[in-house]
Amino acid sequence: MAEAVRHDKTSHQLRLLSDALESGRLGPVKRLVNTLSPAEIGNLLESLPPGKRVIVWGLVDPDDDGEVLVHVGDEVRESLLAAMDPDEIVAAVEDLDIDDLADLVEDLPEAVIEQVLKSMDRDNRERLEQVLSYPEDTAGRLMNPDVVTVRADTTVDVVLRYLRLRGELPEHTDYLYVVSRRHQYLGRISLAQLLTHEAGTPINQLLDDEQPAFDVDESANEVARQFSDRDWLSAPVVDDNHVLLGRITIDDVVDIIRDRAEHQALGAAGLDEDEDLFSPVPRAARRRAIWLGINLATAFLASWVIGRFEGALERIVALAVLMPIVASMGGVAGTQTLTLMVRGLAMGQVGSGNLRALLAKELSVGLLNGVAWAIVVGVVAAIWFQDIPLGAVIAGAMAINLAVAAFAGVMVPLTLRRMNIDPALAGGVVLTTVTDVIGFLSFLGLATLVLLR
Amino acid sequence: MAEAVRHDKTSHQLRLLSDALESGRLGPVKRLVNTLSPAEIGNLLESLPPGKRVIVWGLVDPDDDGEVLVHVGDEVRESLLAAMDPDEIVAAVEDLDIDDLADLVEDLPEAVIEQVLKSMDRDNRERLEQVLSYPEDTAGRLMNPDVVTVRADTTVDVVLRYLRLRGELPEHTDYLYVVSRRHQYLGRISLAQLLTHEAGTPINQLLDDEQPAFDVDESANEVARQFSDRDWLSAPVVDDNHVLLGRITIDDVVDIIRDRAEHQALGAAGLDEDEDLFSPVPRAARRRAIWLGINLATAFLASWVIGRFEGALERIVALAVLMPIVASMGGVAGTQTLTLMVRGLAMGQVGSGNLRALLAKELSVGLLNGVAWAIVVGVVAAIWFQDIPLGAVIAGAMAINLAVAAFAGVMVPLTLRRMNIDPALAGGVVLTTVTDVIGFLSFLGLATLVLLR
Repeated sequence: MAEAVRHDKTSHQLRLLSDALESGRLGPVKRLVNTLSPAEIGNLLESLPPGKRVIVWGLVDPDDDGEVLVHVGDEVRESLLAAMDPDEIVAAVEDLDIDDLADLVEDLPEAVIEQVLKSMDRDNRERLEQVLSYPEDTAGRLMNPDVVTVRADTTVDVVLRYLRLRGELPEHTDYLYVVSRRHQYLGRISLAQLLTHEAGTPINQLLDDEQPAFDVDESANEVARQFSDRDWLSAPVVDDNHVLLGRITIDDVVDIIRDRAEHQALGAAGLDEDEDLFSPVPRAARRRAIWLGINLATAFLASWVIGRFEGALERIVALAVLMPIVASMGGVAGTQTLTLMVRGLAMGQVGSGNLRALLAKELSVGLLNGVAWAIVVGVVAAIWFQDIPLGAVIAGAMAINLAVAAFAGVMVPLTLRRMNIDPALAGGVVLTTVTDVIGFLSFLGLATLVLLR
Repeated sequence: MAEAVRHDKTSHQLRLLSDALESGRLGPVKRLVNTLSPAEIGNLLESLPPGKRVIVWGLVDPDDDGEVLVHVGDEVRESLLAAMDPDEIVAAVEDLDIDDLADLVEDLPEAVIEQVLKSMDRDNRERLEQVLSYPEDTAGRLMNPDVVTVRADTTVDVVLRYLRLRGELPEHTDYLYVVSRRHQYLGRISLAQLLTHEAGTPINQLLDDEQPAFDVDESANEVARQFSDRDWLSAPVVDDNHVLLGRITIDDVVDIIRDRAEHQALGAAGLDEDEDLFSPVPRAARRRAIWLGINLATAFLASWVIGRFEGALERIVALAVLMPIVASMGGVAGTQTLTLMVRGLAMGQVGSGNLRALLAKELSVGLLNGVAWAIVVGVVAAIWFQDIPLGAVIAGAMAINLAVAAFAGVMVPLTLRRMNIDPALAGGVVLTTVTDVIGFLSFLGLATLVLLR
C-alpha cells in the first residue's frame, strides 16, 4: 500500500544519522545534516529524542538555524531555543523574512526580541511591528509586507526599467500590484504579461482586477480555504480603506491546510497538531491524563448503568459475556457517521440546508446495518448459549443501538458546534458515551423485560 | 473556538441555496451558483443530497462544468457524470489543462474518451496520451507537459523577444526551463530575473541549477512531501535520460497534501477520502458493513475471553459492572500513542533509529498514567462496592492494561507497516482488540486469583 512506501527517504536518513550518532563520530553526522534543506532538518530534529536532538542541532549550519526554527512545531521549537544562547538566537533569526520572524517571535525570550528589533533597520522594524500588531491566525499575520507596487498610469517599458533599477524581487513574486496614488490596491499584473507585451503597452490595459484582496482581519482558515479552493499562488492583503499592506503566498498557507486536515485525527485522541513526538514524559503524561480522566468519567457512567441491572446479571451470566458487543458495535457505527460529519462541518458542507437529508441517509444506513448485524449476532449468541430468546434480545438491542448511533453521529457534532465546542476534539467522547450507555441500557433492559419475566 | 467559525461562508451559501431550491424558483439559484468559483461550486455540489445535486448541476454554466468536475471527489464526480450526456461531457472536458484532463479521464465512459481524443489537435492528443502512459500517483501523472524552454547559449534580450513573439505563457509560470540541444533539463531562470537584468546578460549566467528535477516515476507522495518541505511553487519532471517532460505546480500538490493529512482521520473509521457525504444508501451501508463485520469479530473475541471467567462473574457481579472501565481506558490510552505513531510514520519521523527511545518514552507515559488512574479507579471501586480487595484488583488491572496499551500503541502500527498494511486504516481495530482482550483478561484473571481463592 502507498502508506508503506511513504517517506522512506526520510526514515532512511534517520537511520543513517542514528547509526552515525551511536558511533560517536560527529563529522559524518554534520555532513549528512547539512545536505538537507531547513525543512528536512526540522523534520529530522522532530524525530530525534531530546539528547540526540540537542547534539544534531549543534551541528546545523548556523546560517540555516533560523529557517529550521520556522519549520518545526511549537513544542520542538521551544526545546531547540532552550539549547541556544541569546546571541545565537539573534544571529539565527535576524535575516528571516518578516512573516517568518513574526511567526517565531512569540516563542523568543523577551531580551532576545529587543535585541532583534535593535539589530534591524528602521524600515524592517516598522514592518515587523506592523505585522505583530495583527492577532494570530489572521491574514495580517500571514502576510509579508515586502511587495513590489506599480502605478496604473504608466507603460510596460517604464515598469521594466524600474524593475531593472530595483534589482532582485522578493521571493515567489509572480505578480506586481497596481496601486493608486494613496496606495490603494487596484489590481495586479503578472510578470508573464510584462514579458509578453510590447514596451509601449499601458499598464492600465494589462491590469487584472479580478484577484480579490483579503481583509487584514480575515481568519487564517478562510485564507487557507480560498487559496486551496481557487488554486491561488498569492493574494494581496488590504486594510479597511483598501490600502495595500502586503501579500500572502501559498507556501505559508500549505502548512495551515495540512494542520487543519490533521486536526481531526489528532483532536479525536485529545492531541494537538503541535505535539512533540518526544515531549518530556511528565508533560506528555499530564496532557494525556486530562483526556483519560474525561474518558474515565464516562466509563463510570456506563458502569453505573450496568450496575442498575445487577439482578439480571446475577441470574444470567451470559449477559455479562455479551454486553460489550452491543456497546462496541454502536461505538464503531457512530464513529463512522461522526467522522464524515466532522469533516463535512470543517469544509462547510453541512448546515441547516442539508441536515434533514443527511440525517435520513445516515439513519437508513444505520438501520440497514443494524438489522443485518442484529441477525448475525442474534444467531451466533443463540447458538453459543443454546438460548433463542437471548439471541432475540441481543438482536433487538443491536438494532436499537445502531440506529441511535447514526442519530448521535449526526447530532452530536452539530450540537457541540452550536455550543462553540470543537467537534473534532470532543465529538468522539460524547458519542461513545451515548453508544455505551444506550448499548448497555437496551441490552440489559430488554433482557430484564424478556428473559426475567 | 476556531473550528466553530470555519467556513461559515460556505454553509451560509448552502442555506441560501437550499431555501431557493425549496421555493422552486431556479432563477435565483442559478444566479447564486454562478457567482462561485468552480471549486466552490464543487464544494457546494458535494454538500447536496442527490436530488438537489442534479438540479443544481444542471444550472451550472457549461463553461465551468469541466473545472467543477476536476474539483470534486471521485464518488461525487461519478454521480455528476451520470447526469450528463456524452456530448455535454466532451464539451465540458475538452478545454481542460492536460494534467486535469488526465486526472478525469479514467472516470469517463469509453465512448467519451475516444470523442475527446478525436476533438483534440494532434499535439495535445500526444501530450495527453503521454501523461496517461504513467501510472496513477506518480510525478508523470501530476505534471503538465506545457512548459516554456530556452537554451543556455543565448541572452536576456533574445529570450524577451522570443516571449513577446510567443504571447501568453502557461498558467502559473514562474520559471523558464533551460534545456540542452537534446532537450535535457539544465536548470531554470525566473521571470523575475529576466525582468531585473540587462538585455545583454547571458542566460548561462542567470541559470539556477539548484532546483532538482523529479523523476517521472517518483511517487506523488514524495512529490508532495518535497513541495511542502522545500516551499516550492513548481518543479520540473524528467525521464531517465534527464530529458525535460513537464512541470508540476503547487496547486496540483495541495490536494494531495490535504488528502494525505485527512487520510488518518477517515481511515481510522474505515472511510475513504473520496467518500461522498451522500453516497447512495445501499453502497454506503455495504462499505461500512465490512468495517462493522471486522469489529464484530474482534468483539466476539473479547466476549469469548470474558466467557472463560463465567464462574467468577457468577459469584461476584461487581466484576461485570466494572470490567468495561479497564478495557475502555486501555483503548483510549493506546489510541493516543497510536495516533502519534501513525502521524510520525506518515511523516517519516519514526524508524529503527528512534524506535527504542520512542518506546521508552511511551511506556513511561503509560506507566505514569497507569499508576495514577489505577489509584483513582481503585479507590472509587473500593468505596462503591465497599470492597478493598476488589479496588486493589481493578487498580492492578488498570496499570497492566495502560502499560500494554502504550506498548501496543507503538508496536501495532510498526508491525502493520512491516506487513504492508496501512496503519492508518487497520491500526485502531488491532489496537483496541489488544486492549479489550488484555483489559478483560487482566481484570477477571486477577479477580479469580485474588478474590476467589
